Amino acid sequence: MSTNNRRAQRTEQNSSDTEAMPNVPIFYSILQTPFTSSGEIDKTSLLRLLEHRIEAGADGLFLLGVASESMFLTWDEKLQIVELVTREIRGRLPVMVAAYEPATGPAVISALRWQDMGATSIIALPPYACTPTNDAIIQHFAQMAAAISIPLIVQDEPNTSGVTMGASIIARIGREVDNVGGFKLEGQPVTEKLTAVRNTLGENTQLFSAAGTFFVEELRRGSNGMMSGYVFPEIIRAVLDRFSRTDDQGAGALWDRYLPLTASESRPALLWSVRKQILKLRGLVETPTVRSPALTVDSTTRSELPEMLARLNLLKAYPYRQ
Amino acid sequence: MSTNNRRAQRTEQNSSDTEAMPNVPIFYSILQTPFTSSGEIDKTSLLRLLEHRIEAGADGLFLLGVASESMFLTWDEKLQIVELVTREIRGRLPVMVAAYEPATGPAVISALRWQDMGATSIIALPPYACTPTNDAIIQHFAQMAAAISIPLIVQDEPNTSGVTMGASIIARIGREVDNVGGFKLEGQPVTEKLTAVRNTLGENTQLFSAAGTFFVEELRRGSNGMMSGYVFPEIIRAVLDRFSRTDDQGAGALWDRYLPLTASESRPALLWSVRKQILKLRGLVETPTVRSPALTVDSTTRSELPEMLARLNLLKAYPYRQ
Amino acid sequence: MSTNNRRAQRTEQNSSDTEAMPNVPIFYSILQTPFTSSGEIDKTSLLRLLEHRIEAGADGLFLLGVASESMFLTWDEKLQIVELVTREIRGRLPVMVAAYEPATGPAVISALRWQDMGATSIIALPPYACTPTNDAIIQHFAQMAAAISIPLIVQDEPNTSGVTMGASIIARIGREVDNVGGFKLEGQPVTEKLTAVRNTLGENTQLFSAAGTFFVEELRRGSNGMMSGYVFPEIIRAVLDRFSRTDDQGAGALWDRYLPLTASESRPALLWSVRKQILKLRGLVETPTVRSPALTVDSTTRSELPEMLARLNLLKAYPYRQ
Amino acid sequence: MSTNNRRAQRTEQNSSDTEAMPNVPIFYSILQTPFTSSGEIDKTSLLRLLEHRIEAGADGLFLLGVASESMFLTWDEKLQIVELVTREIRGRLPVMVAAYEPATGPAVISALRWQDMGATSIIALPPYACTPTNDAIIQHFAQMAAAISIPLIVQDEPNTSGVTMGASIIARIGREVDNVGGFKLEGQPVTEKLTAVRNTLGENTQLFSAAGTFFVEELRRGSNGMMSGYVFPEIIRAVLDRFSRTDDQGAGALWDRYLPLTASESRPALLWSVRKQILKLRGLVETPTVRSPALTVDSTTRSELPEMLARLNLLKAYPYRQ
Repeated sequence: MSTNNRRAQRTEQNSSDTEAMPNVPIFYSILQTPFTSSGEIDKTSLLRLLEHRIEAGADGLFLLGVASESMFLTWDEKLQIVELVTREIRGRLPVMVAAYEPATGPAVISALRWQDMGATSIIALPPYACTPTNDAIIQHFAQMAAAISIPLIVQDEPNTSGVTMGASIIARIGREVDNVGGFKLEGQPVTEKLTAVRNTLGENTQLFSAAGTFFVEELRRGSNGMMSGYVFPEIIRAVLDRFSRTDDQGAGALWDRYLPLTASESRPALLWSVRKQILKLRGLVETPTVRSPALTVDSTTRSELPEMLARLNLLKAYPYRQ
Repeated sequence: MSTNNRRAQRTEQNSSDTEAMPNVPIFYSILQTPFTSSGEIDKTSLLRLLEHRIEAGADGLFLLGVASESMFLTWDEKLQIVELVTREIRGRLPVMVAAYEPATGPAVISALRWQDMGATSIIALPPYACTPTNDAIIQHFAQMAAAISIPLIVQDEPNTSGVTMGASIIARIGREVDNVGGFKLEGQPVTEKLTAVRNTLGENTQLFSAAGTFFVEELRRGSNGMMSGYVFPEIIRAVLDRFSRTDDQGAGALWDRYLPLTASESRPALLWSVRKQILKLRGLVETPTVRSPALTVDSTTRSELPEMLARLNLLKAYPYRQ
Repeated sequence: MSTNNRRAQRTEQNSSDTEAMPNVPIFYSILQTPFTSSGEIDKTSLLRLLEHRIEAGADGLFLLGVASESMFLTWDEKLQIVELVTREIRGRLPVMVAAYEPATGPAVISALRWQDMGATSIIALPPYACTPTNDAIIQHFAQMAAAISIPLIVQDEPNTSGVTMGASIIARIGREVDNVGGFKLEGQPVTEKLTAVRNTLGENTQLFSAAGTFFVEELRRGSNGMMSGYVFPEIIRAVLDRFSRTDDQGAGALWDRYLPLTASESRPALLWSVRKQILKLRGLVETPTVRSPALTVDSTTRSELPEMLARLNLLKAYPYRQ
Repeated sequence: MSTNNRRAQRTEQNSSDTEAMPNVPIFYSILQTPFTSSGEIDKTSLLRLLEHRIEAGADGLFLLGVASESMFLTWDEKLQIVELVTREIRGRLPVMVAAYEPATGPAVISALRWQDMGATSIIALPPYACTPTNDAIIQHFAQMAAAISIPLIVQDEPNTSGVTMGASIIARIGREVDNVGGFKLEGQPVTEKLTAVRNTLGENTQLFSAAGTFFVEELRRGSNGMMSGYVFPEIIRAVLDRFSRTDDQGAGALWDRYLPLTASESRPALLWSVRKQILKLRGLVETPTVRSPALTVDSTTRSELPEMLARLNLLKAYPYRQ
């Protein structure tokens, strides 16, 4: 489908309430896990983040993701986070929760628990307790999807799982597994892979991308949703609004303007620390604490971040006022 | 130290109760996690395994290890296993429990929990929630060791953690971290690495190996302990007894005789399934169920295993009678 | 196909010269690359190995394989080896040569060069200059197979290439690429994978295994060839001969007897050094030199190897006399 | 050293000819390998690139790097490239050549060949024919450095070698290996690692970075050189010139303006294809051909690249006129 056709369709969809697919890409904001300086979960900051993400225009919340330091949390802490957020959200937004357990049985149990606690969808990685065969991958998602009554999102994120899912296995999941509500694609190259999956699975499949450098290019290729722990969700909202009005150029210009921020907050090995530094500068969390073995930015990076925000005028353009 | 010197020392140690180091290598048997056919933990079989390992001559039990399908268990199931075993063991053997959490904070919490429940030592991997620096590795073990009052064993197992610890970082842990009760070495080549670490850390360090093909060679190189989920622990006991009587040749001949068993039960990707098949053939577990994505042996392997046991006369030489 | 059926077929094939498939599994012996003490290729020893492998009963020679330290050789050295062997072999045996180049274009050029120099078949890995897509893997083998007029063998060896080929991509190669003369399967678990590929591609596909611990089990599953750098090729010949006479039990007993040798010579990280130590002990090479970063066995292993050969009576059972 | 101190030093260095270290960071431009549409090396385009890089202000050329598709070239092609460039350069610029062979012996032979052909320095990866120990890494660089009489640059590039060199092994190389002319650091996080290495090895060590997103931040941290296959070397030159005049802010603003280009040309899995597309759009190469398994951009990316260049006004700001 050409860009022009897609643009036409977008406008048409905007005028219709009957479409199964969203007429505007859905934006799930991934909640960070703020810690107190002694390393406990900082519930006050977590609730502050929650409210801010709603105000900033998120369409949904995503809990226990990679950006939430999922791999750095205990099971009890995960229960606390899901309990707190599902209680406080009071139906204002859908809440997707990750069931990233490395084996199928535990992932099913986890997914069911989140469903019972109020999750509106579940997101899962391929199994990685050991190197899985393709059949084991299919079986994993099939058992999870069969166990729950809410949609299951399939996530392709090789950095965390160590499992690369090519376009052919993704297509097989799409064909063979019922109740799959969409795919989050993060394997490389994201752009070409998105198009390959779209071409195989058709226009009615929900494909999420990650709001990285090529966010607008991904939207133009037919990403109809995104999930991100981006610390200025207001910018994502603004880009999506421009894109939804078919102002692709405006969307691209806005996203390009803030590329230094995008690059900073996705720095390999530093992503958690940089994001929390910025959240602290915005007044959204009390401390920028991350958990080891995640690295903490050094003093130079720590002093560069406020300079970068000032240079881009970000704190004034998008102030946070409680 | 030459083989002759070591042999002399072994004999000498046997006649002394004053040595800090064990005069006979310690054998920790790793408990498998038996499942019912519906995939739940089979507590009856677990207790049967426990009693059998004691009778077979294990010096200690090791819970929640890689051989226990640790990566395939939920937190609640881990609690159940530790609770059950520490209650039933009634002080008959020491109980080491793994705290394999990928980040430092959760690993500390887990280690403290196992200590509270009666573990007599803790074993841990380097942190792997993300690629750790050497400093993060040191910090991980230092924080764990400082938090608990029982010994901490440091495990070098790159297959599970994805983290390779060279001889230099192991030596640094030995020098810089207090309360380290020993090292379990599984990086390759195990034999040469054992000697390198021994040469660096000296004779008073407890070094465990894994009772693989080169078990006796490792003993001769100064491994003074071993941890294994080997399904005929009686054979390990017999090898250790011969070795402790300085009958190296007898120890080696015995181990060599059963190499087809050793090779079978360590088959890459099939290790869990093969071991449970054999435990089922011995009458020790009810079902050979493993959890996906672990592979289950196919029908050919399933029929070959009893043939192999018969060929080696294992069921008659080491019968299990409840 | 059951073991009984296969055994019947084997006997039948033995009485027929008209079958396209070999009635006895083919044995390709991989030539090591002997070095002088100053690190040059030792051509005298290389020719000695060549003659010995012929006398020992190899059906073919395999050059520049992983066991030949392919990754440790220069292009000029590869040319010398292929030139020397193809000249000296004088048609006595077929000569398979590896074209392990990481990109497609160079692999084609290399394959053509080996064909011009007298190779009778080419073996190749999937491309690995960067992570390949499934389509790039198909294209790699298709371009190689189309360029040469001799058979192309597809090798699944994730340790060297870093690329894991599941049963489905192997099946796709079998269906889509002409001129594929067979597959060498080394991904884990080798036994179950062999059966899965056999079931998909049918009885007429040449499947090679690697003469590891489960050599006889692989033969019983329908491996109809093997390639190995095993340093006592006489034993492989004897096992194959027993197996071909449908004496599976004798084949298995023979292979089991020498498992300590098999285990020794496939030791992770030490395989090259151990094999050359043994070749030196047999009088087949002048020096056991390997090239860095390959590890050299330490003094303990070096003294254990002759003990092991003596224990198994190998030097007397299989003497080498020039 | 604070930014202010470094700035002061930079100015001081500018007024002095006596410093051993360059007063302005050195810029080595990595030459791409242009291909004809039939896949041969396009020597005309290669020479055009060479002349353009000189005009654009490169301080040196870097041949056979990752950005040159080194892993996709045959040995004969490497010889052709080095022969052509060293002949045509006629001493106008220094020429660094990569000796990326995976084993030590071949890397030494390759380094000597490049030296004989006129290379002015050699750059090498740690050995990766198999997983190297720290000692094998030291030995690799030591043997290379001892064999050649021109400087050896040590490159930390885990993506290509699969070997991660932490700050401690880099420091050990700096202390133990003579004739090391510097380090190119590409492990993550580059910025913090650069500072850690600088703090350990001191101010007199030449540290190169890669002109990625954090180019200016790396300069401010004390990177005193960079190597890059960036397709608008004019921009790198301009940034370095501003930085050398202590106009850090101007340097940063210039680099930020072109971040969409920087992000595009470093796209994972597409980097070679994107760069050649842009070089083609600039009129510098005849075809954008890359070699399989490198991916070629799809039609959407191919149409987006000229739009991006237009949006940034790059073809007008930096025209190429032969």
